Amino acid sequence: MLQDGAAPGACYFYYPRLVCVVGARDDGVPTTNLAPITWATPLSTDPPLFGICLSPQTHSHALVLRTGEFSVSYLPFAFASQVAAMGRVSGRSVDKARQFGIRLAEPTALATPWLADAYAAVECLLVDRHHFGDQTLLVGEVQAVHMATGAFDEDGVLRPEQVRALVYLGNRRYATLDVASVGQPEDGQ
Amino acid sequence: MLQDGAAPGACYFYYPRLVCVVGARDDGVPTTNLAPITWATPLSTDPPLFGICLSPQTHSHALVLRTGEFSVSYLPFAFASQVAAMGRVSGRSVDKARQFGIRLAEPTALATPWLADAYAAVECLLVDRHHFGDQTLLVGEVQAVHMATGAFDEDGVLRPEQVRALVYLGNRRYATLDVASVGQPEDGQ
Repeated sequence: MLQDGAAPGACYFYYPRLVCVVGARDDGVPTTNLAPITWATPLSTDPPLFGICLSPQTHSHALVLRTGEFSVSYLPFAFASQVAAMGRVSGRSVDKARQFGIRLAEPTALATPWLADAYAAVECLLVDRHHFGDQTLLVGEVQAVHMATGAFDEDGVLRPEQVRALVYLGNRRYATLDVASVGQPEDGQ
Repeated sequence: MLQDGAAPGACYFYYPRLVCVVGARDDGVPTTNLAPITWATPLSTDPPLFGICLSPQTHSHALVLRTGEFSVSYLPFAFASQVAAMGRVSGRSVDKARQFGIRLAEPTALATPWLADAYAAVECLLVDRHHFGDQTLLVGEVQAVHMATGAFDEDGVLRPEQVRALVYLGNRRYATLDVASVGQPEDGQ
């Protein structure tokens, strides 16, 4: 039983999505703007490319184009309140890191800070960009990866029993994974 | 405590990601190839654009370029085994829908079938494409949306208590959301 052929935009079919926080370096104070987003995807393994979508009207968009780089940080579910709050204000008027108690960490490959409480973060060099409709896809080549100790297994896969990932459902709702549901189907799940 | 400055590729920082199944129309038998992927993202709200990443070496890539369209279907967690199995074979040699018991549904806007057991599916017209590293980003404009009755609320947001979304963690592991964790942080979560 389906509501067939509904208009595009009838639902947010693409959620839930993992939340990440884009860091963009500023020349003044604050030093770094923070923008939580979910429209992002890996684009290539070799070279390692990661794409983020930002509206051309955002402060982060201007900063990334100016500096030619950005960071991407993954905060755990416990930070849902701060992430939601960060998404409701513009970095043009607010020092988000200071206002929401977010600690910045020093980059190792580039010049843009990332988030010290992230279980994973990457530093990206802007290598390409394309406008699609009302957004810009900013393509970063990953220059360095930061991982919280114990967050990933020896294969580089997240340990869901150690890290509660933060996912967004739409309409200001967040959730995390059901650890008990994790499994490999071919093992008889 | 962080493993700082690890090499790009040290971990799959971008998982968990929602799983979708790309449908690509074929002229012969099978009529439709099915490819489960997670490297996908909305790209624009107006117009409604959705991007999927496919390797140029895949059968689906060739079919999408030939037909100029694709479908994207979201199967619930209960289909994890079929999804994992679909990802292990090529549509060049196997009729995946037939082999894995997947029922196809008739399109309403375009000519590419989608999956009848999906809680959400969209029909996309290929409007743009870009090569990024070892993948191609295929950009589709959403022409029609199909939703299972009751799967989405009046705001178009997934009802996690009705639909168990299927997410991929890497290394052949799948999971779903913890329904009890869903909340709006500003409500005091």
